[in-house]
Amino acid sequence: MRIVWAQLYFQIGNLSDNALKIIEAIEQAQHNKADLIVFPELALCGYSPLDLLEQNSFIEKCKKELDKIAAHCTQIAAIVGAPLVNNSLAGKKLFNAAFFMQHQKIERVIKKTLLPDYDVFDECRYFEPNKNFELLELKNKKIALTICEDIWDSYEANVYSINPLQELIKQQPDFVINIAASPFHYRQYHHRNLIIKNKVLEYKIPFIYVNHCGAHAELIFDGGSRAFDAEGNLIAASPFFKEDIQYIDLFDKRVKPIETTDPDKYQLIYDALVCGIKDFFEKQQFKKAVLGLSGGVDSALVLCLAVAALGKENVYAVLLPSPYSTEHSISDSLELVKNLSCPHTIVPIENSFNEILSTLEPSFKNTVFNVAEENIQARLRGLILMALSNKFNYILLNTSNKSEIAVGYGTLYGDMCGSLAVIGDLYKTEVYNLCQYINRNKEIIPQNILTKAPSAELRPGQKDSDSLPDYDLLDKILNYYIEQGCSSEEIIAKGYQHETVLSILNMVQRNEYKRRQAAPILRVSSKAFGLGRKMPLVAKIK
Amino acid sequence: MRIVWAQLYFQIGNLSDNALKIIEAIEQAQHNKADLIVFPELALCGYSPLDLLEQNSFIEKCKKELDKIAAHCTQIAAIVGAPLVNNSLAGKKLFNAAFFMQHQKIERVIKKTLLPDYDVFDECRYFEPNKNFELLELKNKKIALTICEDIWDSYEANVYSINPLQELIKQQPDFVINIAASPFHYRQYHHRNLIIKNKVLEYKIPFIYVNHCGAHAELIFDGGSRAFDAEGNLIAASPFFKEDIQYIDLFDKRVKPIETTDPDKYQLIYDALVCGIKDFFEKQQFKKAVLGLSGGVDSALVLCLAVAALGKENVYAVLLPSPYSTEHSISDSLELVKNLSCPHTIVPIENSFNEILSTLEPSFKNTVFNVAEENIQARLRGLILMALSNKFNYILLNTSNKSEIAVGYGTLYGDMCGSLAVIGDLYKTEVYNLCQYINRNKEIIPQNILTKAPSAELRPGQKDSDSLPDYDLLDKILNYYIEQGCSSEEIIAKGYQHETVLSILNMVQRNEYKRRQAAPILRVSSKAFGLGRKMPLVAKIK
Repeated sequence: MRIVWAQLYFQIGNLSDNALKIIEAIEQAQHNKADLIVFPELALCGYSPLDLLEQNSFIEKCKKELDKIAAHCTQIAAIVGAPLVNNSLAGKKLFNAAFFMQHQKIERVIKKTLLPDYDVFDECRYFEPNKNFELLELKNKKIALTICEDIWDSYEANVYSINPLQELIKQQPDFVINIAASPFHYRQYHHRNLIIKNKVLEYKIPFIYVNHCGAHAELIFDGGSRAFDAEGNLIAASPFFKEDIQYIDLFDKRVKPIETTDPDKYQLIYDALVCGIKDFFEKQQFKKAVLGLSGGVDSALVLCLAVAALGKENVYAVLLPSPYSTEHSISDSLELVKNLSCPHTIVPIENSFNEILSTLEPSFKNTVFNVAEENIQARLRGLILMALSNKFNYILLNTSNKSEIAVGYGTLYGDMCGSLAVIGDLYKTEVYNLCQYINRNKEIIPQNILTKAPSAELRPGQKDSDSLPDYDLLDKILNYYIEQGCSSEEIIAKGYQHETVLSILNMVQRNEYKRRQAAPILRVSSKAFGLGRKMPLVAKIK
Repeated sequence: MRIVWAQLYFQIGNLSDNALKIIEAIEQAQHNKADLIVFPELALCGYSPLDLLEQNSFIEKCKKELDKIAAHCTQIAAIVGAPLVNNSLAGKKLFNAAFFMQHQKIERVIKKTLLPDYDVFDECRYFEPNKNFELLELKNKKIALTICEDIWDSYEANVYSINPLQELIKQQPDFVINIAASPFHYRQYHHRNLIIKNKVLEYKIPFIYVNHCGAHAELIFDGGSRAFDAEGNLIAASPFFKEDIQYIDLFDKRVKPIETTDPDKYQLIYDALVCGIKDFFEKQQFKKAVLGLSGGVDSALVLCLAVAALGKENVYAVLLPSPYSTEHSISDSLELVKNLSCPHTIVPIENSFNEILSTLEPSFKNTVFNVAEENIQARLRGLILMALSNKFNYILLNTSNKSEIAVGYGTLYGDMCGSLAVIGDLYKTEVYNLCQYINRNKEIIPQNILTKAPSAELRPGQKDSDSLPDYDLLDKILNYYIEQGCSSEEIIAKGYQHETVLSILNMVQRNEYKRRQAAPILRVSSKAFGLGRKMPLVAKIK
């Protein structure tokens, strides 16, 4: 049986274009004599359309496009993920479904059983779970079709009382398909592989896994679609972060196992972030980015990533020195810009800063220089970058890292400005590691940027270490708290100082209000700030 | 049977203080010889603790506090809402539960069956639904205890396949209690009353309803706890937006029906917003607010509300005239400030604006004055207001209204700055109506502010009507789209112009990115921007 999968980018909400893309792939596969073509979960509407699913007109359009697609299945069968109306009087209005089409019509619909509702997922908001288990049949082969979470019946914290694949296996399928919308984080590839391989080995059955690729603001889909034979050998695999159409002859004994090497953490993150920027711009039909280059490591890294994603001519680096900027901040930035050959300009903020201070003089008289004056500089930079963004139709990239977003070491409406927080899910220590990855063959980011002590340069001689613990320590504690969900007691029990732990956790909690107004963050870890971490805004944890 | 309910404010996450408050109410009720005291849903942890519920230490602390509370129930029984650990291997880790305490221990636990997962609710993220139905018993009376959504089994779009109250009624209870965390919107009071009254009339059974009061950032709880006799007569009612302890002798024939009048829409909204501001400040231990006064109706209204909530001496009004501000903007603002007797200052932005323009001259040369220059002014105002906020520890109030937030008629990091969007859930037409409500006895907001044409005053002679349809028309279309979920086709079918409808809906969709970074909005309608409206950031609806 010749099966094709289509690991493609499907834009959220763009039913017409997604349908055209699906039809094109069907026509091509049909031409190449495939028996079945498989598209990812909710391919028709992109993942996730969120509250668009609540609009009746949106669901009606889905139905129309599905009929159009089915009409093209003359010689081939197709599996297309899309929402299905729940005709029962009770329950949520929709199912998350897979439409099985052949003979120019929708022949069967399979519904998703396990609905993820944790971290970035909220499928219980929209969908009713499936309760009936049936196989599909094609050319005398029986197919167990599952949708994403359906095979994650027992993984870490997600323990469900139903095991959909087990129910299907009782009916003796010949192979399993899982269509997914499984967003990237740098460990997800391993988890996914483990889950699938365990299922294959448990049931001794071939397995085809088809995922989305491409980024939708926060969520990046890495693809990584793959097929295993009944012995658990990988027999086909799509690349990460790239559209790909794969053909596989599933029961052909001549198909040999393939070799793959496990990707490196920073290679994956690099590719993910480049994909994240690229799609964010492309899908909104923007070409050019602007960002502030401080001479520090964060903005240096974002510049490199943006240049890789958009092309050097499309990234405008702006140096915004203040009276407290050091000489090397300028010279290091200029060296980086030279290494990358991207356009740049210098806009000193001193005069504007002084003018604002004299405007505020009547209000500020008899007060001492403090965080107010520091923030004025950061906000003036934000204002100038946004002015350039507005004037020349650039998107402003935000350069905050996860450590500073966590503890609120950033100025709201200042350096927190921007449409996309490119490295907002990388701790400062990871930022350095990713820079090393970029420099692995050649020094692109000047060494001095990587070795000098981090500083916001908003007052004379300021260093991050004046206000924060060393990043090595800070990041470890943050990781325990944010990714691993440890309590202060649990972290202290690991050998960290009581006061340090409490003061860090307290900073995280106190700065929820800043994160609520922060730029959307490209998610690369298992717990990013944003969509997947819902915290009360006004709380007192006591 | 003497029953007490405690319509109190419970701070999210503040388990220690909430427990103390609960214990104090128990002691008092015990002293007054009550048989039972009832607290609202999740009273112990506040509503909603969101992902705090995922922290094991948080749940353990809940358990400890519950035991402490139970130990105080020597002569009285108590019902306390709190999370309960799900000891089953499968399913979500918690139940949303009500703990029935007497004889100094937790005697029974009742779990919530229907978990709301729409609009601002996402209880499926945390809780496993109940499946067993049992009554409580106290002094020979059988109690059907339900939790909030449990009585909303069939309301509008929320149709559940289980009717918890019906299940309980089969066991012949003597009365019903519903403990709730039902946030305010201006129609919710009617819905709630209708639901409860219909249940009472259907089952001919007395009913006690106990709700939270007070505000937690976006969500405002109006309280409105009440009791009905078996004939559907209201026999006791707590006031709206106020803490209240009520005693009711439930089976005493001498208890007479009480009369209440339905509150007016704008009276409710006014009280809600004042409560929203007050609690936002109090719970974060802030006293003072700052806001920019433009001479327009929005900032005038926010100033009035802030003065009502915080006291005139605690609200600092800042006039920030630009070269394009009109004379009357200043004079009208000064008149308002005089009427309210609150402190104010004038900080002209012209010099700073010019200095920034000359700094940007090399970049901007040969371009024409456009939205970039307009936004610089708005952002400069934001910067100055934030500087005052930082310097003097004020919270900046945002003054955007729902119409402009909807269509993106506001400057991100400019007039969109602020920690709380006070009137962000009021359409412009509702803003005027609320101003009339404030002026009902005496002119507080100067007439000229209410009659002049709305303008952002960012270029000479600018009017809102240059860019937007009339607010009467705009607000009607926005209401159909946002609150009522109508599609463009459905709105056009109501008689609105095709082009106008499409252009407005397009503006709403295009500005999702601005709303993602907007200040949290006090929710007063059934569909506010923010928590309860989850839209994809990069989508193309086609």
